[in-house]
Amino acid sequence: MTSRIDTTVILGLGLIGGSLARSLRSSGFSSRVLGFGHREASLARGVELGVIDGYSLDLEDALAGADLVVIATPTLVAAQMLERILPVLKRRATMPVVTDVASVKGNLQRAAVAVWGSMPPRLVLGHPIAGSERSGVDASRADLFVNHRVILTPEPENETGAVSLVRDMWRSTGADVVDMPVREHDAVLAATSHLPHILAYALVDALAQSPVSDDIFRFAAGGFRDFTRIASSDPVMWRDIAIANRGALLEAIDQFEHHLGVLREAVANEDAGVMLETFTRAKQARDEFATMLQARSRAAK
Amino acid sequence: MTSRIDTTVILGLGLIGGSLARSLRSSGFSSRVLGFGHREASLARGVELGVIDGYSLDLEDALAGADLVVIATPTLVAAQMLERILPVLKRRATMPVVTDVASVKGNLQRAAVAVWGSMPPRLVLGHPIAGSERSGVDASRADLFVNHRVILTPEPENETGAVSLVRDMWRSTGADVVDMPVREHDAVLAATSHLPHILAYALVDALAQSPVSDDIFRFAAGGFRDFTRIASSDPVMWRDIAIANRGALLEAIDQFEHHLGVLREAVANEDAGVMLETFTRAKQARDEFATMLQARSRAAK
Repeated sequence: MTSRIDTTVILGLGLIGGSLARSLRSSGFSSRVLGFGHREASLARGVELGVIDGYSLDLEDALAGADLVVIATPTLVAAQMLERILPVLKRRATMPVVTDVASVKGNLQRAAVAVWGSMPPRLVLGHPIAGSERSGVDASRADLFVNHRVILTPEPENETGAVSLVRDMWRSTGADVVDMPVREHDAVLAATSHLPHILAYALVDALAQSPVSDDIFRFAAGGFRDFTRIASSDPVMWRDIAIANRGALLEAIDQFEHHLGVLREAVANEDAGVMLETFTRAKQARDEFATMLQARSRAAK
Repeated sequence: MTSRIDTTVILGLGLIGGSLARSLRSSGFSSRVLGFGHREASLARGVELGVIDGYSLDLEDALAGADLVVIATPTLVAAQMLERILPVLKRRATMPVVTDVASVKGNLQRAAVAVWGSMPPRLVLGHPIAGSERSGVDASRADLFVNHRVILTPEPENETGAVSLVRDMWRSTGADVVDMPVREHDAVLAATSHLPHILAYALVDALAQSPVSDDIFRFAAGGFRDFTRIASSDPVMWRDIAIANRGALLEAIDQFEHHLGVLREAVANEDAGVMLETFTRAKQARDEFATMLQARSRAAK
């Protein structure tokens, strides 16, 4: 670890913000971690649990002594938060480094450029690919990010030192940090996460409205359980992600609809060749993915 | 258990046929279980493992002393097998009871009616909803069906005694047996199993052909792993199921495409209300399904 800092301020103390706070305090990466939010009960609970050293309900007050600011609010709130804090921080002699944890990067980049005129040199956007079925500060864990990927999307305008600080912060949590352009990040997340959620929601909703929905759910087996697990995710969070990543998500949906249309025609025409080729290619890709995941999980042990 | 029979003949000794043979022998439901198939190695291995008492490579010879015949071949072969054995069995003074284990029932019903002129009174179609990632007689287990559902699709033409015998056979394996009309069976299986497989294959194939496919698979997380697990299924088996259940599968695909189209429009128009309503309805249905699965799994213990 090459950086250590004095004061980190976490805006929004949920599962991700709380877990990052715990990790930064326990590793000593940050001498002090303060929280900001709207719900005092969560923040007070954070102090009680030893997640944060203190908190403020006033944004300017919370930002006053910050060396590093982490926006850890829900996706759409993160853009609003950025619009609120950038003008405040711009007035400082030395602006603290600012980063975030949201699932979409393009909307934050656009919000920042709209406020600042260009990408702020000390704003480094990031996305830890970690989570839990539980949420809230009570579910936070210092080891949430160990061996998880964190994607940073540094821009040419970014100060090298600011990028290094954010990278070091995530490395101190045990995460595996990689860089990626904003556009690619949003396309990859649309494909691997946002599109599958839309498909799972669409499927379960379609089946629930079927005249035989009782039997459908009565006779569904293990494959269906795994396939639809993500349809139990938080509807508000996924509505916000779909709005924030609208462009990349629409492209992913269109690409999927095209492939599904080709397979539908193959079924309609009993085109055994197209079906077998498609299923075989998909199985091969999925098997390679499973092998890679296993290797990664072995390496993590 | 109310029925016990002398000789059961299993046509096709894979995972399902082998597991049924093991169970019927160990429970004593059938005094003798014989196998028929094309690959002598599998059948000889079945005898060696104690799965069956004996076997024949000649179909007429295998059927000679049968009281109960179970077609346990792959889906499309099952229809051909039915077309082969019905004329042979029809010549007998007393036809043995015939059943099957295939994933689709409508194509078998049509094949039987085409050969017989109407539904044969002693042919009772069935479908055990059980399986394993492994296949072949070496993977067979006497307890494969314990607490699993078996759907029978009896017809008005069926002899009551034939339906009872097939029901008693499955109950003897520890399965939970329910009746359902053929059309409903095929619609329910299309919705809960065949459609999800098509969606998973289409998604993985679409992503594998993306210009950023390397990153897609590198950054995919646990939700994606669960969602795409079924894309690792056997391509030949799923091609056959898609052909056999063409009608119900096309209806399920069309219904799904309609729901996906509505969600796509909501994303395109940033219609937060439609998204939130759909995701919330789907989450509620999925949560209820999960609760039901848990209750079933507790009851099974």
